[in-house]
Amino acid sequence: MSKRALSVTREQNFPDWYQAIVRDGDMAETSPVRGCMIIKPWGWGVWERIQAELDQRIKDTGHDNCYFPLFIPMSFIAKEAEHVEGFAKEMAVVTHHRLKNEGGKLVVDPDAKLEEPLIVRPTSETIIGDAFQRWITSYRDLPLLINQWANVVRWEMRTRLFLRTTEFLWQEGHTAHADREDAMAETLRMLEVYREFSESVLAMPVIAGEKPANERFPGADSTYSIEAMMQDGKALQAGTSHYLGTHFAEAQNIQFQSAQGTREFCHTTSWGVSTRLIGGVIMTHGDDDGLRLPPRIAPREIVIVPMLRDKPDDAALLDYCVAIEKDLKALGIRTLLDKKPLKSAEKRWNWVRRGAPVIVEIGGRDASGGNVTFMRRDKLRDGDKIISHSRPRDQFVAEAQALLNDIQATLYAEAKARLDGNVITDIKSFDELTAYFGAAETEDTGGFKGWVRVPWARPDGAVLEAIADRLKASKLTIRNAPLAQDKIEGVCLFTGDPAKEYVLVARAY
Amino acid sequence: MSKRALSVTREQNFPDWYQAIVRDGDMAETSPVRGCMIIKPWGWGVWERIQAELDQRIKDTGHDNCYFPLFIPMSFIAKEAEHVEGFAKEMAVVTHHRLKNEGGKLVVDPDAKLEEPLIVRPTSETIIGDAFQRWITSYRDLPLLINQWANVVRWEMRTRLFLRTTEFLWQEGHTAHADREDAMAETLRMLEVYREFSESVLAMPVIAGEKPANERFPGADSTYSIEAMMQDGKALQAGTSHYLGTHFAEAQNIQFQSAQGTREFCHTTSWGVSTRLIGGVIMTHGDDDGLRLPPRIAPREIVIVPMLRDKPDDAALLDYCVAIEKDLKALGIRTLLDKKPLKSAEKRWNWVRRGAPVIVEIGGRDASGGNVTFMRRDKLRDGDKIISHSRPRDQFVAEAQALLNDIQATLYAEAKARLDGNVITDIKSFDELTAYFGAAETEDTGGFKGWVRVPWARPDGAVLEAIADRLKASKLTIRNAPLAQDKIEGVCLFTGDPAKEYVLVARAY
Repeated sequence: MSKRALSVTREQNFPDWYQAIVRDGDMAETSPVRGCMIIKPWGWGVWERIQAELDQRIKDTGHDNCYFPLFIPMSFIAKEAEHVEGFAKEMAVVTHHRLKNEGGKLVVDPDAKLEEPLIVRPTSETIIGDAFQRWITSYRDLPLLINQWANVVRWEMRTRLFLRTTEFLWQEGHTAHADREDAMAETLRMLEVYREFSESVLAMPVIAGEKPANERFPGADSTYSIEAMMQDGKALQAGTSHYLGTHFAEAQNIQFQSAQGTREFCHTTSWGVSTRLIGGVIMTHGDDDGLRLPPRIAPREIVIVPMLRDKPDDAALLDYCVAIEKDLKALGIRTLLDKKPLKSAEKRWNWVRRGAPVIVEIGGRDASGGNVTFMRRDKLRDGDKIISHSRPRDQFVAEAQALLNDIQATLYAEAKARLDGNVITDIKSFDELTAYFGAAETEDTGGFKGWVRVPWARPDGAVLEAIADRLKASKLTIRNAPLAQDKIEGVCLFTGDPAKEYVLVARAY
Repeated sequence: MSKRALSVTREQNFPDWYQAIVRDGDMAETSPVRGCMIIKPWGWGVWERIQAELDQRIKDTGHDNCYFPLFIPMSFIAKEAEHVEGFAKEMAVVTHHRLKNEGGKLVVDPDAKLEEPLIVRPTSETIIGDAFQRWITSYRDLPLLINQWANVVRWEMRTRLFLRTTEFLWQEGHTAHADREDAMAETLRMLEVYREFSESVLAMPVIAGEKPANERFPGADSTYSIEAMMQDGKALQAGTSHYLGTHFAEAQNIQFQSAQGTREFCHTTSWGVSTRLIGGVIMTHGDDDGLRLPPRIAPREIVIVPMLRDKPDDAALLDYCVAIEKDLKALGIRTLLDKKPLKSAEKRWNWVRRGAPVIVEIGGRDASGGNVTFMRRDKLRDGDKIISHSRPRDQFVAEAQALLNDIQATLYAEAKARLDGNVITDIKSFDELTAYFGAAETEDTGGFKGWVRVPWARPDGAVLEAIADRLKASKLTIRNAPLAQDKIEGVCLFTGDPAKEYVLVARAY
């Protein structure tokens, strides 16, 4: 039995711990529809905070939001499939548009078969490309910078809440440019937006870099990612940014007239992050008592639990709490006074599991003495003991924003130390590499395994495929080649050729 | 030919004028997917403003946002169909989950047929009800107040951008209560939220009231609506709020244990508004030069067009504009400096058609004289002539918010006068009623027809159906019985029985 607020610890079983935190932290639950999730109010509140913060950054970099249809004609997908190798075909297909009553039973009406099946968008590349083709005529229309917040569907066989679901929510940026240089600058600009957002808002340190050729988005010239280290050591690809060259423009005839009067194909990009980020936050910051949310994405930064006793002095206690709530809200701090008809200890533990950054508990003595008693969710315990703080009321209010900033910084520093301390650089051979990670079956049970940084020669084609296959046998992948590179020395770990750069190898979600 | 910025006037052809404003105002366009729309940045910006304003009101009244799956198992729909008469069956049905390549052609993979078809949600009543059934056990869990912003799909045969599309965006509130009284209070509370929102944010006056029994949401005990009058006189149902009694709770077994220990069914409500509101805004405020947006939902309240001439003094002119933009933004006013490489006259007319509330044009003389020249979109012309205003720069900035408030109030007052002046109360018989509206074929071409207020006896059943059929022959419907009722006199226009209340009869979208 765990002595903590969750029924299972990270060490006992990391996947079960993840499920427990999603459930007991009131984040989400599985739905009656295979692979689809119900995002509950607390989980949804986190997504609203993520959207607000990221949307501002997307707008600040000059992008306009739009909305494109949920459905994509199958002919669009067919055209893309012709141009793109490795195109995924697991998608939800709408074939009929009506139900009917047959002998008292509701059935799909065979007379309502669509002439052309419709695909529920797995991504909007093709339908947005079709609009670009109509919207762009001249170099004056470029760059065209569009973003969309939407639900998308990919028929996944094995799903895990937030991390891999059939339906998920994301933003997808799609842009068109006059030349390679401008499109590459956009690709890297948005990668940097993701890095900064991830680190400063999610308090989740990442390594930004370029994916190897075999891990590129189908049809991309180059794919970049940010990779975060979870508490089991696995990597989570938390965002991607693609330079698509002119491939999509050629497939969809996205052309413009240049200033010189010539007809040219646009260079396009796309980039996205999804509700998967929430899974990353959980596995970065959660502990055995539940979730710990960075204040900047906490739907409520401070929760006040009044210790009511069904006595006459409850009214004065509540008044005292209301006044504190009002002061904190006036400072722009997202505050909740939890007046639900539950025992205060139960409420406290609910908020611990949900990861509210600061949990205030006000009893009669606090109210009469003008004090505030609180817990920091980032530093909840000393050993098994809960750490409780007390401050004069006015001091607590005056210092509240600084306290939240400190929690944000503490969570980041903790995760940053984990990442910085767990990239192994002294592995010298493929055998050593696979020996370090152990057998494939230990993927979820083998304890913490960090990432391994190895020099490589940037092979491609069949050589790269062979390397990827051998890595896959140990459930390993090359995550990316970090943008920030040390001076390279030695030879490629895989081929023995002179090394060109370092890449990170890891197990991953 | 129109002397105005649109190619067709309201008087010439109202439906064509509507299409022109949607297109030339850069609001939306039809997509390659039948009945689905692409919402363009300016149109999407309006929806973002609507969402922000309404979401705040939904939260302020105690509701939590969630997210439920896009897909609904067909068995859920079948169960609802059993309980609900008049249940609509036009919906998108997902039957397969994979495509495959067959002889170089992409086809639906027959091996990937779903065991149970999935319905793309036409509304989330059933899947949310299923969650309520799991989430609610005790009276302590009530009221449960949930809202969702989502896309929904209804297979519509005749579509019109924003007004009726196969896919549309909306919010749907779903709540569960311990008794009728609490649920009815919620139903009317949200109706009032919609009324206040519509009038103060959209500047669109409405009449709130109860729908007749034949116009209720299938399965509802009572349905309330807000109805707005468009510039052709037709009514637009702009929002609905339903008291569902215990019907849905019984169908889905949503029960709770009362304080007395008995098992009871919940009383539920639902309420929603959609992207249709944007169609309402267009038909309420648009004129023959394009859209006129109320400042509170304008993505940009003030647009500054610099009259650049490709001359060296352009730089000073731009600096002057940037400084004004900065001052306005510092006041929290959504401001855009339009630096696009287009002629300034073209830019001006683009913003006129899009309906930016204030369009500032800065030329060399303005900059050197320290002045601001601007147009109010709500009062663009005197006869055919454009009205231009000029103010000292600092005065313009200081008065900008008051100017926007005045535009908001002017648009509301104009629409309110139209509504107040066009509800006819002296029609005494069914024949007079149909004669006033004219033949059904004149629906779109018969010129302005107001609404008719008639006394009625609140009939139901077959009597009401017969009345509805007779009204339908003239393309008329009973819109609602206003909440605010005059003292009732006389007899029912339809049955001759003693009248119980007044209802509004109109043609409608």
